[in-house]
Amino acid sequence: MSNPLGDTIIALSTPQGEGAIAVIRLSGFNAITIVDAYFHGKSLVDVPSHTVHYGKIKDESGRILDECLISVFRAPRSYTRENVVEISCHGSPYIIQQILLLFIRHGVRQAEPGEFTLRAFLNGQLDLSQAEAVGDLIAADSSISHDLAMQQMRGGFADNIKVLRQELIDFAALIELELDFGEEDVEFADRDKLEKLVLKIKNVISSLIDSFALGNILKNGVPTVIAGRPNAGKSTLLNVLLNEDRAIVSEIPGTTRDTIEETLTINGIVYRLIDTAGIRQAQDQIEAIGIDKTKEKISKAQIVMYIYDVIETTPQQLWQDASTYLGNNDQIFNPDKIVFIANKMDLNPYTSPEDYYKEGMIDKNNLITLSAKNKMNISYLKDHLYQMVIDHPQALNQTIVTNTRHYQALRDTISSLDKVLDGLVTGVTGDFIAMDIRSALRALGAITGEIYTDDLLDSIFGRFCIGK
Amino acid sequence: MSNPLGDTIIALSTPQGEGAIAVIRLSGFNAITIVDAYFHGKSLVDVPSHTVHYGKIKDESGRILDECLISVFRAPRSYTRENVVEISCHGSPYIIQQILLLFIRHGVRQAEPGEFTLRAFLNGQLDLSQAEAVGDLIAADSSISHDLAMQQMRGGFADNIKVLRQELIDFAALIELELDFGEEDVEFADRDKLEKLVLKIKNVISSLIDSFALGNILKNGVPTVIAGRPNAGKSTLLNVLLNEDRAIVSEIPGTTRDTIEETLTINGIVYRLIDTAGIRQAQDQIEAIGIDKTKEKISKAQIVMYIYDVIETTPQQLWQDASTYLGNNDQIFNPDKIVFIANKMDLNPYTSPEDYYKEGMIDKNNLITLSAKNKMNISYLKDHLYQMVIDHPQALNQTIVTNTRHYQALRDTISSLDKVLDGLVTGVTGDFIAMDIRSALRALGAITGEIYTDDLLDSIFGRFCIGK
Repeated sequence: MSNPLGDTIIALSTPQGEGAIAVIRLSGFNAITIVDAYFHGKSLVDVPSHTVHYGKIKDESGRILDECLISVFRAPRSYTRENVVEISCHGSPYIIQQILLLFIRHGVRQAEPGEFTLRAFLNGQLDLSQAEAVGDLIAADSSISHDLAMQQMRGGFADNIKVLRQELIDFAALIELELDFGEEDVEFADRDKLEKLVLKIKNVISSLIDSFALGNILKNGVPTVIAGRPNAGKSTLLNVLLNEDRAIVSEIPGTTRDTIEETLTINGIVYRLIDTAGIRQAQDQIEAIGIDKTKEKISKAQIVMYIYDVIETTPQQLWQDASTYLGNNDQIFNPDKIVFIANKMDLNPYTSPEDYYKEGMIDKNNLITLSAKNKMNISYLKDHLYQMVIDHPQALNQTIVTNTRHYQALRDTISSLDKVLDGLVTGVTGDFIAMDIRSALRALGAITGEIYTDDLLDSIFGRFCIGK
Repeated sequence: MSNPLGDTIIALSTPQGEGAIAVIRLSGFNAITIVDAYFHGKSLVDVPSHTVHYGKIKDESGRILDECLISVFRAPRSYTRENVVEISCHGSPYIIQQILLLFIRHGVRQAEPGEFTLRAFLNGQLDLSQAEAVGDLIAADSSISHDLAMQQMRGGFADNIKVLRQELIDFAALIELELDFGEEDVEFADRDKLEKLVLKIKNVISSLIDSFALGNILKNGVPTVIAGRPNAGKSTLLNVLLNEDRAIVSEIPGTTRDTIEETLTINGIVYRLIDTAGIRQAQDQIEAIGIDKTKEKISKAQIVMYIYDVIETTPQQLWQDASTYLGNNDQIFNPDKIVFIANKMDLNPYTSPEDYYKEGMIDKNNLITLSAKNKMNISYLKDHLYQMVIDHPQALNQTIVTNTRHYQALRDTISSLDKVLDGLVTGVTGDFIAMDIRSALRALGAITGEIYTDDLLDSIFGRFCIGK
């Protein structure tokens, strides 16, 4: 990505394929003049920013490529802060290709993936964490992952970090000033104040680090296993849960998307459902392997819904099956991970759920009685699944870190700040303290892009689609 | 499609899937006010037409759905001649769905396929043949099919037909005036002039009908069979022809499209290549069936490239194979359909092509010597294939009918005009002549949509994508 700002770039910005319309975007100093050269309509050279103009795009030979609407955005009032032109043409792959080729023949370069957003970053329109949020926003497929990306795109915790970082920079400057005085043994930087500042920053950053586990789940979905014996009612329950969910989506044609796995959405949280072999007693070697695989899936899951049939299952059977599949050494049945579902309550309302509770194994609050067939108590199950992820509703109002790169940078910051604190305790010289502060500053600066390398930019923007 | 103009419609106008940006379009009286109600930025109610505005779309609860660019087009200066708003948002399926749902909750209706273009037609922005050309333009995948659709979208032969139709309407009015005078035996309409007019119209329409065969090929591609014995060099030739073609397309990422079959493009004409079983002597019943299938494919093709190996093939073998596969009763080897390709000329430059010519069978102008391996004479073959479709270059400058519906309407017109001429010769009464003229007018009017039925509109616009 050397010298990315010197030239004018072009790309298709809407998805590939046939459609009613397609948008081709150009950005760069010459964007307006180069489009104007092949646009037959009003001259674009003098039109105001943020105006739309109808006309024809013709190639060098005068052949009409398309009738288009041209939107003009003048620097710096554009996404990239450069001159930007958007060509809205008919959504024909042939036309798109011809228009791209026309401008590429005349010195415009095909944009690399994410290069428009890269320019927005390099020109100061967005910081790096905001640029990353653009990619997250496009990929977001639930209300919560969308809201998290939107929050990050609109500044998120980056503003907070910038303030803390500036305070730290001021201290670093004072300490480095001391170094200039060499042998004179002066202290411009108050060591007590520095310690307080470092502890304050550590405190903020630690809570951001703590938020990452939840952020990761909210962004990527909750791995959820639904397990139980054959005929316990797994698929009926799944259908009841999924159909409600799907009915909303399928109302709007043209917006459903391919999913590799089944997902269930509750209050905006996506539960990614993982299939397991039916739970049964191992009769032979081969079934034993199946049990091991199921146990592995269960151990990797964030949530396990264990469903059983209240008519067919005795408490003893339930405890035995559960011990085989769900138990581990630390905790027999972890209520943060496992929910027991007593199904078919409609068939025998006299079955007492109390029989299934057992001291230290299945807790009353962790067993839900329902009838999947009659859709009884389903909303109660949903509330329970939601609370297994979000303990307290206010958790969602706090700042949440969702990006692994930010998480790593925050951990690096803490590690450097701990060295600063150690240095203050052991009374090392200013140059070592300054070095550790600089190291923390680099880690913090990498989040917002105040510090970056070409490799970092390549790895972030290379994942973007072309045209973004 | 009853009362389609009464309400405001909405649809995603760019292809589905993730992308940098997506465009959602609204059209109707309330389009601007309804978007303004959920747009947080400048008030859209008073902004000029053809301006773009940056801001946020929020739902009823104040949740930010996206940061968008909103383009405003005021009636009648829009595609549909109604108020139109285009929302350019991030290309996220989730965001698209949320924005569509927001406006659908507030009285905007999801557009039916092609409904924007339908409104453009009903509001007089486009005639019916122009509206149909919009669909053809999006589907066009070669320079010629693109140019034909563009020509039709910009008026095409419709303007010409409108003039002729008006002249005919004037005559019909005069003849119907005669009918009002009943028994008085007056003739306002000059029968000689009418005959001349009808002959003139027939002449124009006949040449349009004649152009359809070519138009159909240019629009849909030329069904082309490549046949020959195994090892004659079929696949080498195909690769040489196709790779040149593909190199151009693959330069531009993001614009290639799925093709069901192999296609070859020469000067903008698409040749759709049809595979056949290798040509060989039938040894048994099963091979005989294979030969019949190959012969059937050959008989349905527009062009057959018959390739043979000059080293391995004697003239007698060529004539025999060709007679088996390519001959028919009318013409042994039709030069408009079949081109013989003498391959592997590099291996034995001493082979004389003259040996393969045979009176009444293979014509000198119809045999091309080349080496697929050494890419010798390939451009000569391409020129030949092109000329087999386009006899005279000026054919492409004439008006060409590509639409089967138009073709049928033109034939109906001729049939009614013939009845008018018959009536003039046999001297039938004015009411019969008027009836036949009206029938011709209906057929002509159906082309441009001056006459239409709801069923016709449904069948035309129902084929469009949603959002067009």
